[in-house]
Parts: sequence; structure tokens; C-alpha cells
Amino acid sequence: MAVLFPRVALIGVGLIGSSLCHAIRRGGLAGHIAATARSERTRAKAVELGLVDSMHPDAGTAAAGADLVVICTPIGTYAEIGAAIRARLKPGAILTDVGSVKQAAVRDLGPLVPEGVHFVPGHPVAGTEHSGPEAGFAELFDGRWCILTPPPGTDQGAVDRLAEFWRRCGSQVEIMEPAHHDIVLAITSHLPHLIAYTIVGTATDLEDATRKEVVKFSAGGFRDFTRIAASDPVMWRDIFLNNREAVLEILGRFTEDLTALQRAIRWGEGDKLEDWFIRTRAIRRGIIDAKQA
Amino acid sequence: MAVLFPRVALIGVGLIGSSLCHAIRRGGLAGHIAATARSERTRAKAVELGLVDSMHPDAGTAAAGADLVVICTPIGTYAEIGAAIRARLKPGAILTDVGSVKQAAVRDLGPLVPEGVHFVPGHPVAGTEHSGPEAGFAELFDGRWCILTPPPGTDQGAVDRLAEFWRRCGSQVEIMEPAHHDIVLAITSHLPHLIAYTIVGTATDLEDATRKEVVKFSAGGFRDFTRIAASDPVMWRDIFLNNREAVLEILGRFTEDLTALQRAIRWGEGDKLEDWFIRTRAIRRGIIDAKQA
Repeated sequence: MAVLFPRVALIGVGLIGSSLCHAIRRGGLAGHIAATARSERTRAKAVELGLVDSMHPDAGTAAAGADLVVICTPIGTYAEIGAAIRARLKPGAILTDVGSVKQAAVRDLGPLVPEGVHFVPGHPVAGTEHSGPEAGFAELFDGRWCILTPPPGTDQGAVDRLAEFWRRCGSQVEIMEPAHHDIVLAITSHLPHLIAYTIVGTATDLEDATRKEVVKFSAGGFRDFTRIAASDPVMWRDIFLNNREAVLEILGRFTEDLTALQRAIRWGEGDKLEDWFIRTRAIRRGIIDAKQA
Repeated sequence: MAVLFPRVALIGVGLIGSSLCHAIRRGGLAGHIAATARSERTRAKAVELGLVDSMHPDAGTAAAGADLVVICTPIGTYAEIGAAIRARLKPGAILTDVGSVKQAAVRDLGPLVPEGVHFVPGHPVAGTEHSGPEAGFAELFDGRWCILTPPPGTDQGAVDRLAEFWRRCGSQVEIMEPAHHDIVLAITSHLPHLIAYTIVGTATDLEDATRKEVVKFSAGGFRDFTRIAASDPVMWRDIFLNNREAVLEILGRFTEDLTALQRAIRWGEGDKLEDWFIRTRAIRRGIIDAKQA
């Protein structure tokens, strides 16, 4: 198949950025992969792994002349990166990102996008608990969804080309409003991470002897939470700070439900507990049917 | 290796009971596996799968003459099963269970154990989200811990024989006080399940359109919770009802921590969030080092 973009620039080569390198190579989607990363170590590692065709010391140089620029850094860096690259973006280029909060992407990058550049925020709903350029692999996006949230009036051709790019990275593509994206992800991703971080922290604060046993006997459910709670701390800090309203809204509902179950346990209301637990099985079946298990 | 028990009786052949059948066969640990199950369907399925040597219509008949009796049913059934089998237990037999709350096992079964029968409560810390006789497999216990909580004065020979049984099922064995077991499991297993059940229920209550999207985009963390929340409802109802004190204590600590993180999100305290998320990574490393990942 033909190259989709002669030159792709990746700002950041962590888990998502490095997986994109692999997926782009696998699909023959770009003529040239340019990249940058904030730390010298990450830049050197990405070069050593042969992930990129050219490595640049800063975002502006990396983005210069690229047909597709993908920001793959924590959301808190967007405004700074936008300021650094805006003058270097080629007319007709597509600017996108992979962040987990889309209203923040629109808020921080939108005003900086020059005339003639197509801004199409995106979010591949895929990941692992590992970070850094060594963590990437070509199959990360296979069968997963990528959500695009183009602002009103965005050039349809640009949206189509970016959608085709993600499809050829293995994803299915969905178009969504940024606000709707942020509430859906608050429940499917942000709240689960917050909960997992909390419970693992609660365990960390137990007295020494008990904490050792918690590690030893983690196979009863806890270890799944520790996997989630091992995800990148800065990336997650930025997600919570930038999707505050939606996370607090969903967290409020969760706390109400947890309080109701807590009360059922305290008062020995077995029927209430059993009914709740039967109901939740149905959602699991839905996920298996949707091939997202 | 030699047969450990000429006759083993399993009361219940769900996930754990049927996995024990496979592990017993793999290790050549018993001369004969007798079993029973409450439902006709389960009994027929276990026979069809060739899991047992004899299937019995009730617990008393199954336990009669057995050298090892393993109760593999929800904790709420223990008192009834104890009453049904006590007169049929062979002198010198070992009576054990696999339940996730050990103080309740001691409370409900202890007073019913006849003179000359060795009562050694147990808990293999292993499982999957699947239930029923089809769900079992020989490797379920491999490398996992089995906790035994023998009451004071229990015959050491009986404890040693049961420990050897679990080791030859693939497990490592640990001896513990029942109360301590219940608090450790409250954090490593019971609270994670309660949280997972809660969040999946919270998602179930969203309006229809959003719920469909929650299933579709579950790869961001939510699907791991749905897996946990697909576990057997009756088993889990009984765990929460029977480990109330420990679960409520740990839940209290969890809620305090969650409230603190919620406040940090509301007030934009990024440093506090990042510190917390860095700290939780260390526990994950501990679990990987302990080979329980």
C-alpha cells in the first residue's frame, strides 16, 4: 500500500509514540519518521532501537516540514509544545495528539494552530502499564478504538486521512464530541486508574509486616490493580488535572454506590449485594461480545 | 509419588473444586475422588467431564469414609454442610475448606467437628472470574499460596499432610492466624472485588447510549474491573457478609485516601497526585519480584 504521509513527526516517543513508530513501519505509512523527546536518554534510546529516521533536539525542528505531527506527551506540555511548533508547521499539515482528555487538547492547542494547518485531536484507547521507548510494540492498536474529535469546520479530507492512518495502524475509528469523549473516558479509564492508585496507596500505608503479606497474597484481585497503578505518574497527574469536572462527576456517582454497598454489608443485606453482583456480570458479557476483553 | 489420601471427598465442584480434581489427578494424590454438588446440572456436568470417580446426591454420602474432605462451596453453606456430614466423618479424617474468610469457617464448622477428626481450615489464594465445573484446570494453584489456619491444638501430623497435599497441587503453603488472614485478604481480595463490583455497577446505571460506549471503549482500564466483577455473585455475597469487620475497616481507610485524592484533583494539587502515583509503582515492583504478577 502507498505511503500515507511522506513525513511524520512524533513529539514524544514513550509507550504510544514508540508503538506508533512500530505500527507506521509495519504498515509502510510514512516515508520518514522524525521525532523528538524531552530527555536525552529517551532520544538516545529511540535512536538505538532504530525507531526513527531522524531524531531532533526540540519539537520545532522535529515538526518542521512534516505532513503529520502527532503530539505524544503528557497533556500538561501541550501549550508549550504548541508555542514551539506553530511557526514551523507546514501549510496543509495535520496536527493531532494522543491524549486522554480532548477538551483540554482543544483548549490548549486550538488557539495556537496557524491558518492552513488541520487540527484533529485524537485518542487511541489502548495502552499498557509500561512506559518509555522500549515499551512500544506494533500491535498495541490492533482491534482497539481510536477516537477523533475534530472541531466544527475541520477539513473533511484531513479527518479522512487521519482516520485512514489509524485504521492502517490497526485501529477502528470513531468520531466524537470532545466533551462526550471526556465523560466516557472518565468512567472507562480515568476513574479505574484513580481507584487503582488509591487502593494500592492504601495498602502501601499498612504496617510493614502486613504490607509484605499484601504483596505475597496479591493473586486474589489486588495484583490487577497494581498493574493499573503502575502507569506513568506524570501522564496520569495531567489527565486528572485536565479532566477534573468529568472525573469529579463520575467519582461522585461511584462514591454514592460504594456507600450503598458498604451499608448493605454493615446491615447484612445479602439480597442487595447478590442482586448488584449479578447485574455487573452482564456488562462483562457485553465487553466479551464487543471483542474488547 | 505415593497416593496421599486413599479417598478424597469434594463438597462442591465449582471453579476450585473442579480445579482440585484436575490437580489431584495430575499429581496422583488420591486413590478415589468422591464428590457432590447442590445442583443436578453441576453433578451431571462433573461426571460428563470425568472429574470424579463417584458422584453423590448429598454431602453426607460423599463425605462418608473419606480420608480428606474439602468443602468447596460458598461460606454461607458451611453450617448446613457441617451438620450434614458430621456423623459420616471417618475417625482420623481431615476436614478442610477453601473459603476466603477463615474466622467464619472456624465459627461455623469448628463446633460441629467430631472428636477424632482433624479440622484444618484452608484458603488457596487463586482464582479466575469463571465459575462452574467446566472452569477448572490443573494449573490454577501452581506457584500460588495456600494459607492454612489450624486452630490451637490441632494435630501437627494432620496439618503436615494437608500442607503436603497443597504443595503437590502446585502451591506454596503458609500457616496463619484466622483473624490475620481475614484482614490481609480484605485488602488483597475483598476490597478489590467490592470496588470492581461498584464501578461496574456505576457504569451500568449510565444512560443507554453512554453505557454502550463504556463497553466499546473499555480497553482504557475498565475492562480489568469488569473481569473481576464477573466473579460468582453468591460466593462474593457470602464473603462480604462473613468478613464484615475487616472489610469495613479497610474500606474506611480506602475512602479516606480516595477523598484526599479527590480533594487534590478539585484543588489542582498536581504534586500531591504525582507523589501518590510514584509511590504506588513500588508495590507493583514488589509483586513482580515476588513472582505473583
